Amino acid sequence: MGKGGMSHGSSGGEEENMAAWLLGVNNLKIQPFKLPPLGPHDARIRMKAVGICGSDVHYLKEMKLADFVVKEPMVMGHECAGIIEEVGPEVEHLVPGDRVAIEPGISCWRCNLCKEGRYNLCTDMKFFATPPVHGSLANQIVHPADLCFKLPDNVSLEEGAMCEPLSVGVHACRRANIGPETNVLVMGAGPIGLVTLLAARAFGSPRIVIVDVDDHRLSVAKELGADETVKVSTDIKDVAAEIEQIKKAMGTGVDVSFDCAGFNKTMSTALGATFSGGKVCLVGMGHSIMTVPLTPAAVREIDVVGIFRYKNTWPLCIEFLRSGKIDVKPLITHRYGFSQKEVEEAFETSAHGGKAIKVMFNL
Amino acid sequence: MGKGGMSHGSSGGEEENMAAWLLGVNNLKIQPFKLPPLGPHDARIRMKAVGICGSDVHYLKEMKLADFVVKEPMVMGHECAGIIEEVGPEVEHLVPGDRVAIEPGISCWRCNLCKEGRYNLCTDMKFFATPPVHGSLANQIVHPADLCFKLPDNVSLEEGAMCEPLSVGVHACRRANIGPETNVLVMGAGPIGLVTLLAARAFGSPRIVIVDVDDHRLSVAKELGADETVKVSTDIKDVAAEIEQIKKAMGTGVDVSFDCAGFNKTMSTALGATFSGGKVCLVGMGHSIMTVPLTPAAVREIDVVGIFRYKNTWPLCIEFLRSGKIDVKPLITHRYGFSQKEVEEAFETSAHGGKAIKVMFNL
Amino acid sequence: MGKGGMSHGSSGGEEENMAAWLLGVNNLKIQPFKLPPLGPHDARIRMKAVGICGSDVHYLKEMKLADFVVKEPMVMGHECAGIIEEVGPEVEHLVPGDRVAIEPGISCWRCNLCKEGRYNLCTDMKFFATPPVHGSLANQIVHPADLCFKLPDNVSLEEGAMCEPLSVGVHACRRANIGPETNVLVMGAGPIGLVTLLAARAFGSPRIVIVDVDDHRLSVAKELGADETVKVSTDIKDVAAEIEQIKKAMGTGVDVSFDCAGFNKTMSTALGATFSGGKVCLVGMGHSIMTVPLTPAAVREIDVVGIFRYKNTWPLCIEFLRSGKIDVKPLITHRYGFSQKEVEEAFETSAHGGKAIKVMFNL
Amino acid sequence: MGKGGMSHGSSGGEEENMAAWLLGVNNLKIQPFKLPPLGPHDARIRMKAVGICGSDVHYLKEMKLADFVVKEPMVMGHECAGIIEEVGPEVEHLVPGDRVAIEPGISCWRCNLCKEGRYNLCTDMKFFATPPVHGSLANQIVHPADLCFKLPDNVSLEEGAMCEPLSVGVHACRRANIGPETNVLVMGAGPIGLVTLLAARAFGSPRIVIVDVDDHRLSVAKELGADETVKVSTDIKDVAAEIEQIKKAMGTGVDVSFDCAGFNKTMSTALGATFSGGKVCLVGMGHSIMTVPLTPAAVREIDVVGIFRYKNTWPLCIEFLRSGKIDVKPLITHRYGFSQKEVEEAFETSAHGGKAIKVMFNL
Repeated sequence: MGKGGMSHGSSGGEEENMAAWLLGVNNLKIQPFKLPPLGPHDARIRMKAVGICGSDVHYLKEMKLADFVVKEPMVMGHECAGIIEEVGPEVEHLVPGDRVAIEPGISCWRCNLCKEGRYNLCTDMKFFATPPVHGSLANQIVHPADLCFKLPDNVSLEEGAMCEPLSVGVHACRRANIGPETNVLVMGAGPIGLVTLLAARAFGSPRIVIVDVDDHRLSVAKELGADETVKVSTDIKDVAAEIEQIKKAMGTGVDVSFDCAGFNKTMSTALGATFSGGKVCLVGMGHSIMTVPLTPAAVREIDVVGIFRYKNTWPLCIEFLRSGKIDVKPLITHRYGFSQKEVEEAFETSAHGGKAIKVMFNL
Repeated sequence: MGKGGMSHGSSGGEEENMAAWLLGVNNLKIQPFKLPPLGPHDARIRMKAVGICGSDVHYLKEMKLADFVVKEPMVMGHECAGIIEEVGPEVEHLVPGDRVAIEPGISCWRCNLCKEGRYNLCTDMKFFATPPVHGSLANQIVHPADLCFKLPDNVSLEEGAMCEPLSVGVHACRRANIGPETNVLVMGAGPIGLVTLLAARAFGSPRIVIVDVDDHRLSVAKELGADETVKVSTDIKDVAAEIEQIKKAMGTGVDVSFDCAGFNKTMSTALGATFSGGKVCLVGMGHSIMTVPLTPAAVREIDVVGIFRYKNTWPLCIEFLRSGKIDVKPLITHRYGFSQKEVEEAFETSAHGGKAIKVMFNL
Repeated sequence: MGKGGMSHGSSGGEEENMAAWLLGVNNLKIQPFKLPPLGPHDARIRMKAVGICGSDVHYLKEMKLADFVVKEPMVMGHECAGIIEEVGPEVEHLVPGDRVAIEPGISCWRCNLCKEGRYNLCTDMKFFATPPVHGSLANQIVHPADLCFKLPDNVSLEEGAMCEPLSVGVHACRRANIGPETNVLVMGAGPIGLVTLLAARAFGSPRIVIVDVDDHRLSVAKELGADETVKVSTDIKDVAAEIEQIKKAMGTGVDVSFDCAGFNKTMSTALGATFSGGKVCLVGMGHSIMTVPLTPAAVREIDVVGIFRYKNTWPLCIEFLRSGKIDVKPLITHRYGFSQKEVEEAFETSAHGGKAIKVMFNL
Repeated sequence: MGKGGMSHGSSGGEEENMAAWLLGVNNLKIQPFKLPPLGPHDARIRMKAVGICGSDVHYLKEMKLADFVVKEPMVMGHECAGIIEEVGPEVEHLVPGDRVAIEPGISCWRCNLCKEGRYNLCTDMKFFATPPVHGSLANQIVHPADLCFKLPDNVSLEEGAMCEPLSVGVHACRRANIGPETNVLVMGAGPIGLVTLLAARAFGSPRIVIVDVDDHRLSVAKELGADETVKVSTDIKDVAAEIEQIKKAMGTGVDVSFDCAGFNKTMSTALGATFSGGKVCLVGMGHSIMTVPLTPAAVREIDVVGIFRYKNTWPLCIEFLRSGKIDVKPLITHRYGFSQKEVEEAFETSAHGGKAIKVMFNL
């Protein structure tokens, strides 16, 4: 290996490798985690920054999410970055010491969807902290090296971990084809709404209006670059009036709406506010069965575009962070160390903390 | 025929020009219709075949459709073909005697949507028999010559009139990007479902399953080329079981579903039956507000694509008819002449006739 | 201004309306120009800023360009902006006094290309100063109002006139699908290369390398935002070595190359420097018959994309100028008044002036 | 393995496994071939039909092709089909006895091009009989099971082997977006021109004109379904006149031209004959450096689209064969057994045989 400019480093002692295991409802324990063997195309990474996602909290509270049920103890976490400790003999683009952001899903590359470039839809995907696959809230992990993306010097490991939530916004913008001519409406100023806002701006959207029920969230969105904010109610009867407010705030036609909440009301607003020939991208997942005016939108050829996770987003996210087109640092509102006590506190903060956007572990 | 390749023909006597006027609810009268002046790019056409559309019947019964209200007497009809009697001095591609199929909508060509090639969404569209614009169920009409498409010798005028409903299926197939790899599900075997079936086959779909509640309609669909038919109930509780029946009938993944009915149940079935990464094209307009499992479809990146009428479809429809890739003749189930009595009968047949698919006037 | 939102203003006296007529080789005379009648959808505009394009100079020197031959005296100019003096009765979006940038081409809206949204390819296009159509280097012109685009307060009339050359860069970027992931190579730092550079940056390209034979041009390009410049020779034998220099300057794969010169050498360089799966957009028109390594590029699926003028670019150009994403002011290097003497000088400067980029008339 | 419904069959004795090795210029020997071990996702296939490709002949005569040089003895062949003998434990879609067509290239699935769905451009591709990778003209091979596609009962193994050359035509049609509205010109009626013709028809092209210098080839093309043929010269001076002949034969605008020869003359003809806004797809590789009128085509926005091999084509090819939309049997003009003598004769026939289209081995 030496001549190839790479080294395998010293072995990562298993005794020191601990992970945050989900053992049962509200039962998260830091326990030893045995690393799988390092394959020829793999990397072993020392974790340095791991964020908490809503799905992590959901598993902790419910032991399930959609069709995924936690049946065996599972390591949590999938928003992460770290430092390469060792690489397999076939890995050429990384060396120990490299700081990397990590894409969490391993697809099969044998099914039609993978081969057609839509690997995010692979039905055989192995994804961090989606049962029965272990996550990355651990001292070390082993992962395919092609899913480890080297960070430039001016991008921190915490920012690297933020590539994961940011990827959702980036993938949504790609699916909705956002560019310098796309006037954008964002329904919902929670974490997903905010990364979508940041991504839409970075894709060149000239005008972005964001909508929420909460003044604080809207003020954060304004600081992050929204051109206008519109405060709305939760009452479905207000949809028509609020659409008028949104149109006035936009000042021109809405080309693409992102529904980052996913409720009957937000989706109805998005469908009604979007101009003929535009798109509504459904990102949030509030309601499963939706009652919405789909036909009046369809006859204006407004397409409803869904998203699932992301694909091929890390290089672009890193470029956005490197160039300063996106600054994710204001989204990191809370930081915790990796002890049993702090892990518990961190999840509580993420679950209940009023003004928390992103809770981050520094390992 | 002058040397310039054009002729203005003899003037079309107004006294003989009669049209079917909608005067009030269930009140259709054949009355004189004064032609507008012939502009330099216009053609005067003697109508020979005009079909009745569901929207015509709807106006007759309700005097409105969606946001369009009949406030003044209006000539009916928009599915039509005829023979050129006269062309304006700037018209080069047509001469008197040419048999033509007629595209019914005149868009503004000044708005962004027109300029971007989506003229069907033009908000300033003037469309036959959509108030306050007169239709084409008349002895003669004047229309822009670029919306008159010459028929080949082996395509009849009745078939030419069928280009209008067929255009809906063609536009839907284009929007859903149907090709030789697209396995297609059609929900609903009414007139729109049938033209969508015919169009999907002509676009190369290798396998088409069609679904309806009515045995006769399914047998017609089978004769028109559906690979399999699935009879379903109207009970929303049966959706899951019927999706399994559809998947079994398809034998492989459904790539695109056309909902040609547009009800909660048909749309729920379409969303559930379509494979990850596919499309559901909403063509029918049964329900306006829909209650459907939109989020589970969105997270499989199934896009919902709407359509409004059509654009640039006449040349392709005529080519499909010329080549025999599509045969619309079996869809024409009833024929009437253009007398007061027959017009009334024809509309009754179209409104109530159990096995009627397309009712056609021969003028 | 009447309450109807329109006004016909006072008649523009013809005696005062002068234009720069091309009468023969190197024979440009300011002479009276009779305005055509104002149609219902037209505007009469007092010209304020008109730029000189290479094609204007070409007509002056050769009386022809490609297949277009000047057979009758013709008014010059097509890069222009002015102030609305009068609008036809159907015009709703403009009033006298509005400052507007003007799109110079009037397409037929009856052919397939127009209807499919590719009106720039219309074979019946009527385009300013392309024989036999008169141009806009005149005190006043009459033009379709939908081709007059209102300027925001912070965009000057000169900048408005620059929308025309900028549109070439914008259309090229659209055709090549430039976005935040597209690393761009620009061959040639003349006026077209510079507007393409500006447009590519505004479309979000993260890294742009520009190439020329001239140090001054490269220094201008650097000031306008190119990340790296590469000085090259005119010797075809240097292509391989220069491709290596370009790749080194880019530091990563070239996704899209714009050949803004259009010579055998520049095109060979572009084809060789572009990464597999990328695009080469041919913008410049140096050589007509080209000798280039097309097959080695084709087997790497590098597509060669051509452009002709532009379509639907004015709103986006104006938005780029308004937001400051593009600053065209540094491109305007020379200004002249509208007298016989100054017109002659201006064309000389444009034809021969070493450091001239854009020569502008202020009328 | 048993319970999974699969079996590994009996071991394939190495002593009986022979392959056609390329040992030097014009030196092809049938010698023992040692199979690599069967991985968990692999299949072992008994070869039954292998076709000879022009590239095989080229390697035999020159020991190189483009940048690929044969430095070590290499097994030939890459157009193949066979019967599954054994599958690895993770393979679920195949069992011994299945008849399969085989896609010959194994891409890395780690590079950007693979992940974006353009795996045919993978720079780390391992492709049958492209040095230093062994081919498939052998009694048995081991190959990834996801590249083995089960044949329906009505598709023979020889037809299965034809999926490889047919894939070139299918990929070209996809790249050029052929559909029921695309009038197609095919330059060259050799094996590649013929599969492109067949594919274009199967993709729905309503009208195909094919051009060649040879009467026999044109008559074959006519039998295979070309609407019109045009015989041309090899003299570049005839291009303009031949373009007129082609336009007359087409009777309407050429939307897409496939240059399946790849010479200056054929490409010049294709560029000139194609209608504004169309595409020229360069499939053949006659000349590397080309001298062609690229600029006049570019200003009509005719895009030049290259292809390299294919991707995701086997399922569609098999469907075309199953449904009868394509019949490749007439292309198989010569058949040989797998003995030293017949192998030598087969390659001679393929290299020189006047009316040979496809030479096929039956093993």
